[in-house]
Amino acid sequence: MNQPILYCHQELTAAQIEKLHELAPDYKIIFAADPLTHDMLDNIEIMYGWDKKIGTQLLDSSTSRLFWIQATSAGVNHLNLKQIQQKGVLLSNGSGIHNIPITESVMGMILGHTRGLYASIAAQENKEWKIPETLSELSDKKMLIVGTGNIGAHLAKIAKAFNLTVFGINRSGHHVDDFEAIFPQNEIDKILNRMDIVVNLLPLTKETENSYDEARFEKMKEGVVFINVGRGESVHTAALVAALKSGKIGFAGLDVLDQEPLPATSELWETENLLITPHISGIAEHFKKRLFYIFETNLKSILNVQKLSMNQVDLDRGY
Amino acid sequence: MNQPILYCHQELTAAQIEKLHELAPDYKIIFAADPLTHDMLDNIEIMYGWDKKIGTQLLDSSTSRLFWIQATSAGVNHLNLKQIQQKGVLLSNGSGIHNIPITESVMGMILGHTRGLYASIAAQENKEWKIPETLSELSDKKMLIVGTGNIGAHLAKIAKAFNLTVFGINRSGHHVDDFEAIFPQNEIDKILNRMDIVVNLLPLTKETENSYDEARFEKMKEGVVFINVGRGESVHTAALVAALKSGKIGFAGLDVLDQEPLPATSELWETENLLITPHISGIAEHFKKRLFYIFETNLKSILNVQKLSMNQVDLDRGY
Repeated sequence: MNQPILYCHQELTAAQIEKLHELAPDYKIIFAADPLTHDMLDNIEIMYGWDKKIGTQLLDSSTSRLFWIQATSAGVNHLNLKQIQQKGVLLSNGSGIHNIPITESVMGMILGHTRGLYASIAAQENKEWKIPETLSELSDKKMLIVGTGNIGAHLAKIAKAFNLTVFGINRSGHHVDDFEAIFPQNEIDKILNRMDIVVNLLPLTKETENSYDEARFEKMKEGVVFINVGRGESVHTAALVAALKSGKIGFAGLDVLDQEPLPATSELWETENLLITPHISGIAEHFKKRLFYIFETNLKSILNVQKLSMNQVDLDRGY
Repeated sequence: MNQPILYCHQELTAAQIEKLHELAPDYKIIFAADPLTHDMLDNIEIMYGWDKKIGTQLLDSSTSRLFWIQATSAGVNHLNLKQIQQKGVLLSNGSGIHNIPITESVMGMILGHTRGLYASIAAQENKEWKIPETLSELSDKKMLIVGTGNIGAHLAKIAKAFNLTVFGINRSGHHVDDFEAIFPQNEIDKILNRMDIVVNLLPLTKETENSYDEARFEKMKEGVVFINVGRGESVHTAALVAALKSGKIGFAGLDVLDQEPLPATSELWETENLLITPHISGIAEHFKKRLFYIFETNLKSILNVQKLSMNQVDLDRGY
């Protein structure tokens, strides 16, 4: 049998490369820039970062020895999970890397509205000294976080520091620290009207597609702040625009959209009380360092016990 | 002697009025809208909220029985402190009321920059899906808070939740919770070059006027974020504009200016990487409730022991 290959689609620092050689001395380490012969493909056992071209070839091949893919993103709905499952390939994701930047983006989006910063920016363009009509405080308000995974838990911790009372929604309603109370997904409509802020963090699944529609927005509190940093397809765009125009939603911040990049023809660009950011909330200053930590941790357990020790994707659930 | 008067320049709720009658049954309670005869002026012992016209009359009068003024703002440099001191009048301020809104404004101003929200707003106006060039995280960065009073201490607590390491400057360098280290005012220039974010909270005094000048900005870290929510006169405006143009300051957020309202002719309006908010960071949703709490607490101790129990202004220091 030929020497097994650890294929790196991610760039590494010299220290990280050295670490890999030390942890996996039996493996040949190949980078995306390296020449890769057809014969070598079969020897790739580990893939660090999803390389669509090579990854698809390996999953389609009957002779591939691919054993584990370490994806870089939290959501993995861009991969063929069914095929990965059928091949018996392990998949781990980058969940946790984005907790801090997404939390900081969400808090920034909300505070820009509540503290009159967006109104001030508009006035500044007109060289106008104009006190915004309404300024509010987060303290003592209620926030609902839909999705209480890694990101939701970190957001809850920061929101609580601002003296927000934080409620959560997850599949079963199970307890997570820093949340005042958590409700199962099917009870969301019962509590929406008490929430001043609703933050969607849900990954895209069949259940979450268009889950924020006219009926759901209708159940929200008048003037609610709505933030979507989950997936754009979770929101019915026309219903959102209508809810913004009627004032039902006081402010919305969307980092994800059902069309990305959003075409210039979209009516969203000019909808008032709406901030659009181009899918940037997860951009992490310390991305590479954090991703390598996950990869290194999993590599050790893969080599020792042929199992992942963190961030394994449940291929049935899809996250 | 005539019945003493408690003069309310602040509006009160019915419950608050009832509370005052209960606490101070010997006092006549007069509001700004009530007719006030010349004879009654002499009987005003307590002033809730500074009424410039009546207050000045009382301070100028040799027959006034004015004993205590409860001001509404944290800074009291708009009052004639010397005269108040000569008259032996007690003065308390509104310090503490603004901790929460100012902290929320400061964090919002900073996050809008670091998370690419301002860049996204500019792109949105052009209907452009454009990833901002630099996005950063607060986590692991260093913040310097100049002024570690009520507001600074609250800001430090929230900043620490974001995993910022927080340093402080105060007169003596004395310890305050949540700060990693505190330095005396005369050492500020020694530590400035290590700070990613500098937040000025200082009140206006002789020492703080123009304290952020060309030499001080020069000592800051390249690309520093500078926020002023203290007093506009602390910043030398031309030096700030030059530092923004050279890139020495990466972003500045100014809620206070040396001219307010800022005239349309000011070059600040069009300076890049600068957010101007019209002195709104302190606007508190729960202002009246918090101010009444201070007033009520002080009223009890004034009536019992003729002393203030909180927020007394040191008339020599001016805050």
